[in-house]
Amino acid sequence: MKPFSAPLDDILFSLNHVARAGSLPHWDGDLACEVGKHFAAFAEEQLAPLNEPGDRLGCRLEGGRVRMPEGFAEAYKAYAEQGWPGLTVPEQLGGQGLDGTVLAVTSEIFSGANHSLQMVTGLVPGAVSTLLSFGTAEQQARFIPSLASGEALATMCLTEPEAGSDLARIRCKGVLSGDCWSLTGEKIFISGGDQDMSDKIHHLVLARTSEEGVKGLSLFISPCTRADGSRNAISVTRIEEKMGLHASPTCQLAFDGAEAELIGEAGAGLRAMFTLMNHARVDVALQGVAHAARAFDIARGYAGERVQGRGPDGKPVTIDRHADVRRMLDEIDALALGGRAVAHLTLVAIEAGGDQDLAEFLKPVAKVFCTEAGMRAAELGMQVLGGYGYLREYGLEQIYRDARITAIYEGANGIHEKALVTRLLSGPAGRAFESFLVEECAARQSGAYKLDEALETWRGARDRIAESADPALWAHDFMSLTAATLVSCLWARMAEAADRHPDPRRIRRLADRALALRDGQAVFG
Amino acid sequence: MKPFSAPLDDILFSLNHVARAGSLPHWDGDLACEVGKHFAAFAEEQLAPLNEPGDRLGCRLEGGRVRMPEGFAEAYKAYAEQGWPGLTVPEQLGGQGLDGTVLAVTSEIFSGANHSLQMVTGLVPGAVSTLLSFGTAEQQARFIPSLASGEALATMCLTEPEAGSDLARIRCKGVLSGDCWSLTGEKIFISGGDQDMSDKIHHLVLARTSEEGVKGLSLFISPCTRADGSRNAISVTRIEEKMGLHASPTCQLAFDGAEAELIGEAGAGLRAMFTLMNHARVDVALQGVAHAARAFDIARGYAGERVQGRGPDGKPVTIDRHADVRRMLDEIDALALGGRAVAHLTLVAIEAGGDQDLAEFLKPVAKVFCTEAGMRAAELGMQVLGGYGYLREYGLEQIYRDARITAIYEGANGIHEKALVTRLLSGPAGRAFESFLVEECAARQSGAYKLDEALETWRGARDRIAESADPALWAHDFMSLTAATLVSCLWARMAEAADRHPDPRRIRRLADRALALRDGQAVFG
Repeated sequence: MKPFSAPLDDILFSLNHVARAGSLPHWDGDLACEVGKHFAAFAEEQLAPLNEPGDRLGCRLEGGRVRMPEGFAEAYKAYAEQGWPGLTVPEQLGGQGLDGTVLAVTSEIFSGANHSLQMVTGLVPGAVSTLLSFGTAEQQARFIPSLASGEALATMCLTEPEAGSDLARIRCKGVLSGDCWSLTGEKIFISGGDQDMSDKIHHLVLARTSEEGVKGLSLFISPCTRADGSRNAISVTRIEEKMGLHASPTCQLAFDGAEAELIGEAGAGLRAMFTLMNHARVDVALQGVAHAARAFDIARGYAGERVQGRGPDGKPVTIDRHADVRRMLDEIDALALGGRAVAHLTLVAIEAGGDQDLAEFLKPVAKVFCTEAGMRAAELGMQVLGGYGYLREYGLEQIYRDARITAIYEGANGIHEKALVTRLLSGPAGRAFESFLVEECAARQSGAYKLDEALETWRGARDRIAESADPALWAHDFMSLTAATLVSCLWARMAEAADRHPDPRRIRRLADRALALRDGQAVFG
Repeated sequence: MKPFSAPLDDILFSLNHVARAGSLPHWDGDLACEVGKHFAAFAEEQLAPLNEPGDRLGCRLEGGRVRMPEGFAEAYKAYAEQGWPGLTVPEQLGGQGLDGTVLAVTSEIFSGANHSLQMVTGLVPGAVSTLLSFGTAEQQARFIPSLASGEALATMCLTEPEAGSDLARIRCKGVLSGDCWSLTGEKIFISGGDQDMSDKIHHLVLARTSEEGVKGLSLFISPCTRADGSRNAISVTRIEEKMGLHASPTCQLAFDGAEAELIGEAGAGLRAMFTLMNHARVDVALQGVAHAARAFDIARGYAGERVQGRGPDGKPVTIDRHADVRRMLDEIDALALGGRAVAHLTLVAIEAGGDQDLAEFLKPVAKVFCTEAGMRAAELGMQVLGGYGYLREYGLEQIYRDARITAIYEGANGIHEKALVTRLLSGPAGRAFESFLVEECAARQSGAYKLDEALETWRGARDRIAESADPALWAHDFMSLTAATLVSCLWARMAEAADRHPDPRRIRRLADRALALRDGQAVFG
């Protein structure tokens, strides 16, 4: 299998020159580059080599406790010792105080090297954000330093057997007795619900404190260990057998009067949970990007070495000389670059602060587009490898299996598509996105890449939806159109900034291809 | 997991009223129905229950021999005892003398119930055809009855480590010494290269008898056992670890001076092998259809029981009431019905005999469209099930893994796409397809389903390709357009014949949806 190689040049190009992170007051491109280099080296040397064995060995449930595959605990220890868990934690709470754009660099590389391990460690920044926004100063001081140091990991406990997309059906109960809350109920699909890497686990749990649908939900933090050092009443009742992510233990947890504390107000759990979920969603988008980039790297490497067929001169050629393989390689590459640009633009909008209207609109688009990109890239990458792609030893089939969950978890893609047309489009978020398109369009009145037609098509669709009796019927197609429109803008930015990339020809060629297709200059228009 | 249920009504509707098998002189719809009922019962009771355990247990290589998963040998024994291997074998050679259209009924059901086992048994009809076309009467009498009775199974040994899509690179050698040929070389990706179900295995092997590229290739039959009862010099050197089809042993075979006989002339191996491969390709198309139909059955069943969210009246609803889930279910259903119609039309064109021009054109279209349909249906089906779709126990993730290989084997889809534009389009095959479209169009001048625009778009694309310096560049897009055009015709046929289906409303609704999309009446035109 081709060793993992972090796509750092592409990532920095995307942040600096496509998503324009330089517009953020706190952005430091040199620092991001340094952090990226260090993390890339760590990921290539210590995380990526565990990816295939982790898939093969999987997690085991032994005596009620989860055992991670061999080597994972050691890798996590090194990760913690190097300070990576605290990257975005404020300095006064034990971290380095960097922001989400730098985290995007390490997070994508982590997912590309070892999606399973990233799953188990990746909720820490979101948990920290949630505690910073909704916890008391005392709670922040008590919980965050352990997350920053790596002593503790965090989980997100939402789903129940009867409550998946529909959180109003949550039955897990929070009961107040004296000063203490206790939780009773069952949670499923909890990534890292248990593991043997960190000393502690802080479970963030959505539970019912009254019978008022989603308004009766509260957010709790329930540590694996009580103040007196005894184990809290949280047990792992099973780990799921999944198609992929075998090294990420997906746990069914039973809370049996487990001690817990409220985070924020009772009944305001959904809002707090959305802070955590929103972070996770952009992270999932980056997982899709990571899979696309890794699929490209493997497929390109294979196609450059595999000799089949002959060229115009009658001599044997490597398969990257065949039109169909070139088409697939270009498409995979474009999916990775386009997806990354969307995810980074979203992150820059989040980090810009302010009203968050554009960020709200972009988050579901990034989640859907990037996860689809990862899946499609894995599919195409496997096709490039032919029969070898279907074998375990080439690594692409693991990407194909691992990437598939990203379209399902953190809100199934259909849920995000529906939110876009029913909740966001007609409000300030929709207007913010339109303004973004108008600006992109206006900036290109004299350039090679005109976007007027794309803007008009998007507006036309939006207006038709506004008149529709049931906007949900348009959700899927409108998401596709919105993503295509947004990606066109970002390809224009990429083309214009191509000289800032180490391989300008590659960027220009892919941009020309993407924009030609978008403007209806495609083969059979 | 939902028990397997054979989609017999859909299959018979498709053959009788969409592909119009009644135009074949030997077609007997009542007989096809009877055969289908018997095979459906057998598949539901004995083949399908082995599908999940077969995936979990896999095949093992023990002492140089392949062991199939538990229960497979017994199921094969019952299959042979009921006479299924001989379905298409001439009566005088021990079979029932039925044709490929009836085989399409059982073959699709078999693949839906247990793709892995179908892989191992499914080459028999193609091997019989090859022997009937190219073998001597003596060879036919010696080999075919054992295939008809189930005593023997057949393999197809083409691929070598350095020769995949490019058969000119084959190095396996056939050497004549006295009256006897012997084979020496390595073959990979041989489905059922060994197993413990049938007493004998007849290997059909493409090997080199001179150094003239593909003209130096000859087809051999090499039995697992020599005339004197000793084992032939063919050994299994490994079985591959694959993403799916774990109960289908994919073998690496070493031929070490193995006894063999020529089938047909020396140097004419490719033509003979194409008889076998062409059969296998339509069979692969039916595998795609089978996966789509099974994915639909599971997803529909789940969506009809899973309660999430509320309807317009505020009451909890099953998820098949949500727009996005309905969209996905309809798309899966349409992929199965559309794919099946394409595969059946191809089979009827083959069975019609005559010049085979239309059949030649349809075969690659069926292979590509139906395998893509199976993959896409599995992806959508998993999305309907959400997180449960990613778990082993619901069965969809196995479909997702098993279906993926169909776009790769029997000629990677890109190879078929290229053949369509570079080899078939400008010749009699392309003209036969155009005539087919013209007739379908003419038949609908006064009806509800006009196809004129689709025909003109297709012709325009063909003409542009004819003028192109490098038609291969258009291969992928032209295949998509051709498939879409063909499927439109077949949806028109389905709509017109809807009353012959037990559920006419379903057929009409899907046809209206498919044809509206095709005619540019889609959401955002």
